Amino acid sequence: MDSAFAIKDQERYRDHSASLPNAIDLSHHLSTLSKNRQTSALKDLYRYAARPGMIALAGGLPNPETFPFLEMSAEVQTPDALSITPVTANPTTAEALDAQSMVKKPSFLSWLFGKKNTETITIPKAPVNSSPMDINLQTLLQYSSAQGHPALIAFIKEFVSKVYQPAFGDWDVLLNVGATMAWNHVVFMLLEPGDGVLYEEWSYPGAMNTADPLGTHKVSIKVDGQGLIPEDMNKVLEEWDEEKRGFRRPKVLYTVPTGQNPTGATMLAERKKIIYDICVKYGKSSIPYRQSGKDADSTCTADIIIVEDEPYYALYADPWVSRKHPKQFGARYADVEHHKDSKDTDGEFLKKLPPSYLKFDYQGRVIRMDAPSGIAQASNPERICGRPRNLQDLDFQAMVGKLLADTWKYDGYIRWLRGIKATYAMRRDWMCDLFESVFHLEFDQTLPLSPNIKWVTAYERTTPRTIMDEKAGFKSKKAVVSFVPPTAGMFVWLAVHLPSHPDFEQTKRDEGKDGVNKMLYDLWTELAESNVLVCPGYFFDAQPGVPHEGAEDIGFFRLSFSMASHEQMEAAVKTMYKVFIKFFQGKEAL
Amino acid sequence: MDSAFAIKDQERYRDHSASLPNAIDLSHHLSTLSKNRQTSALKDLYRYAARPGMIALAGGLPNPETFPFLEMSAEVQTPDALSITPVTANPTTAEALDAQSMVKKPSFLSWLFGKKNTETITIPKAPVNSSPMDINLQTLLQYSSAQGHPALIAFIKEFVSKVYQPAFGDWDVLLNVGATMAWNHVVFMLLEPGDGVLYEEWSYPGAMNTADPLGTHKVSIKVDGQGLIPEDMNKVLEEWDEEKRGFRRPKVLYTVPTGQNPTGATMLAERKKIIYDICVKYGKSSIPYRQSGKDADSTCTADIIIVEDEPYYALYADPWVSRKHPKQFGARYADVEHHKDSKDTDGEFLKKLPPSYLKFDYQGRVIRMDAPSGIAQASNPERICGRPRNLQDLDFQAMVGKLLADTWKYDGYIRWLRGIKATYAMRRDWMCDLFESVFHLEFDQTLPLSPNIKWVTAYERTTPRTIMDEKAGFKSKKAVVSFVPPTAGMFVWLAVHLPSHPDFEQTKRDEGKDGVNKMLYDLWTELAESNVLVCPGYFFDAQPGVPHEGAEDIGFFRLSFSMASHEQMEAAVKTMYKVFIKFFQGKEAL
Repeated sequence: MDSAFAIKDQERYRDHSASLPNAIDLSHHLSTLSKNRQTSALKDLYRYAARPGMIALAGGLPNPETFPFLEMSAEVQTPDALSITPVTANPTTAEALDAQSMVKKPSFLSWLFGKKNTETITIPKAPVNSSPMDINLQTLLQYSSAQGHPALIAFIKEFVSKVYQPAFGDWDVLLNVGATMAWNHVVFMLLEPGDGVLYEEWSYPGAMNTADPLGTHKVSIKVDGQGLIPEDMNKVLEEWDEEKRGFRRPKVLYTVPTGQNPTGATMLAERKKIIYDICVKYGKSSIPYRQSGKDADSTCTADIIIVEDEPYYALYADPWVSRKHPKQFGARYADVEHHKDSKDTDGEFLKKLPPSYLKFDYQGRVIRMDAPSGIAQASNPERICGRPRNLQDLDFQAMVGKLLADTWKYDGYIRWLRGIKATYAMRRDWMCDLFESVFHLEFDQTLPLSPNIKWVTAYERTTPRTIMDEKAGFKSKKAVVSFVPPTAGMFVWLAVHLPSHPDFEQTKRDEGKDGVNKMLYDLWTELAESNVLVCPGYFFDAQPGVPHEGAEDIGFFRLSFSMASHEQMEAAVKTMYKVFIKFFQGKEAL
Repeated sequence: MDSAFAIKDQERYRDHSASLPNAIDLSHHLSTLSKNRQTSALKDLYRYAARPGMIALAGGLPNPETFPFLEMSAEVQTPDALSITPVTANPTTAEALDAQSMVKKPSFLSWLFGKKNTETITIPKAPVNSSPMDINLQTLLQYSSAQGHPALIAFIKEFVSKVYQPAFGDWDVLLNVGATMAWNHVVFMLLEPGDGVLYEEWSYPGAMNTADPLGTHKVSIKVDGQGLIPEDMNKVLEEWDEEKRGFRRPKVLYTVPTGQNPTGATMLAERKKIIYDICVKYGKSSIPYRQSGKDADSTCTADIIIVEDEPYYALYADPWVSRKHPKQFGARYADVEHHKDSKDTDGEFLKKLPPSYLKFDYQGRVIRMDAPSGIAQASNPERICGRPRNLQDLDFQAMVGKLLADTWKYDGYIRWLRGIKATYAMRRDWMCDLFESVFHLEFDQTLPLSPNIKWVTAYERTTPRTIMDEKAGFKSKKAVVSFVPPTAGMFVWLAVHLPSHPDFEQTKRDEGKDGVNKMLYDLWTELAESNVLVCPGYFFDAQPGVPHEGAEDIGFFRLSFSMASHEQMEAAVKTMYKVFIKFFQGKEAL
């Protein structure tokens, strides 16, 4: 991070609660359950126990002598253990395949001077000093403040303030055991049985499976390769007919803005700003649902709470560049190359990240759920999230706290995130490059399902003669699959052109609207029988049974590029080619 | 554990699912929320990913290369680190005060041969073998089966089978992040808003604060020094008048049977058996609440689900013995002394533990929540608890799994529990002994609030002349406090005889039924001002605003003996003496 950037943010961090307005009162959104929740009287008493000279017989704490863990240590990677320039050239070279291990090989110099990519962190049993920031097992294995360890909380607050820069003052953070648990809390905090929840039309099943059992209704908003379509969201809300729908207009939006699961789409600043404004605008109609006894007209100008689930936030990377464009391809990662590993590109990295919804959140209506690399956090408006705190006795935070707050610290963590981003960008490139080398790709095509987005469409390869011949060849062929190369996350969302199948019309006539899913299931089975396991798109359907406008005849697969080795990925893409071509042409691929 | 015992249980463990009947169908108890819960289709797919040769692009797993933790290790106590004979004599001796550290001092021989009370456990990053029992960070930091790590689950199953011995076949266990979270799951799994929950009349606020916000009603059952009074439970259920109460008869009992929080009471086998039978018997009346479409008369013979929360189970110890009874006092811990640390007393230890409700549970209506020493587990009937599993991505189990399943194993864990039990029994003795040396105690007294239980009552000390004189002296004095020396847990539940205060009748006339709490609060404040912090009993009140029958004029304090050093405890009891006497007599104590 460059120093000018750092100083500015340090100042903002220090001053921000004084200089920014606080959140507006959104307590009318609290569910009955949440309103009923009370502060635990017992836990309040713990504070008195800290009075000097006090002999406390009041608490119910087990004796720390009976904790079996005396000291803990871990070998951890250094923040720069993952290269930020893992593979820039053809990944089929030996050098590149070597890079699949991803962990930076120590150079001769670093070997000579004993520089390692790992270090050891140790957590003692007893406190080293009396600061509440001291990380020790005795404190952490004890029942603790339900908010989380002060050192870890302070670390996360610094991160939120510097990286997300919320536009209101009195925000706070709350540690959770994973984002699923955080979303579970939010669901019970905000929703009543029978309420609607806004989802991307393809959404994460784990989130929907958490809210559905409460009896909530899924209300799907159309997406394209850049995430939620504001016009559709506006339309759904504007035309909301409570009588026809059978439930009041939704007041909660669940969204994965970066590297969305499953579509891989990333929302950039402009769209987020529009969506945010829509969420503010729909305040007026919330009046009927407000608590009685308050002056609705004067205070309530707000309505929809945005819950942004961001497991892939730091993975946002430069777009994939095809090898068909030698100039851009040569410059792939030029910016990273240029700066190499030098410290001052951390600022560049942060500047390139799409802003969080928090950046636009001047009212305190955004609840952010973070879980980078298994480290869970949530930044939420204090007003809304103050209540469920008392519920949760927190589990094991010692190691994570020691690592982030005491060892890596802010700068180290940012450097670590850059390495993760580079790792996933490299894997994204592997998969897109492999599609390019195995299929014939055409760029800048549009599909009816999202006319404003450029898709990459894959066709059967023709026997190459001249470029003109090839062009003529593919045009006579039918599209097989299309995708938008993702800029974040770990998924390629593959649109399968089922109408290219010779029996498509017949199947549709025979099976009705189930025809599409049936054909997709047949194709999925063919792939699985050929040892390639992908995820059928209908797992993610936020409007099951209702056709997706513009995609009525399209099936989807979600391909994950996070785990497979390059060798496995290459075999998988080649298998897909064979299976797809045979499926669509009824004959073996060329 | 003696070998005969071990073999018998090993056999039972191996055979029990074949030889015991399965749980009856209790699914009519599931809440709407729980019935709505569905298996996550996405997670089901994970299983296919294990097929040999399969290239999985289907999952959404992050790449383990990007986990920062490479290896973890911890220094842990050996199972015999805590002595099982920590203090048997007058604890004011130097030797005994030394024992406050509780950790066994290594003997000369153990020092000579390098025997330590600690060992180091290490968890590697990558799997060592392909067994699902292998404990490694890669598997554990990954999204995992929501039930928990197989090795830890297997360990807990062995423990449940051998120690609790459920009387039905198809039980299962589920790991939770602490018992509060487990109870939270149970609440949402079984209860609808407006349902009643049966609690001990004084109960753990953390549990009540979890269920109350759902809009549940507290229904309190009378307790004495031995826990729930079966006659009262029977009466409450038998005379249930849905119209008058405004809600249907409760179908969930929350109870802490061992070392109850706050009363310290422990329920033994006989009472548990009666309570269990009451819970079975009340099946018939549940018919109106059953799901339609089933033949209620033929299948439903069951009604109340017993949730036993057992953080203090292993702490059950021999009763406190007064030094007024030299014979018994001399034999205090004689059984432990006799067997010393030899392995074969583990069996004795287990035989002495009161049976879990699971031991009587031939129908599968018991949900057990365990959290010994920060290790959380729950043993629940499969039929009931199968559902919420899908919700929870589990957190950090590596260390606990490594310690229990791979290092200590079953026998080591039992030995460890014996040390914890001995530690808390010693501390219980400290407190009771201190009451005896500071106050004048009378034994075997009865109080109107539990006429069948023998209480110890504390009076002002008289200036000792002869024993006869002393007897005459204390009889003219008024009772100050009474307690039942606990056999488990970490609390003494102190009944304060407010009618001994000269202004008691006047205060009651002035303040009505708030008078008792007001006087107790004054006394609490006096103690706190004198640097002794205790917990007011009304924090635990399961029937706030309704007087407790037989205890209308009694206030309660909960004293914890888990944390204070002997020196602090002695100072606290002496301070209590002074404050109590001054409060009741209006003059300084003798």
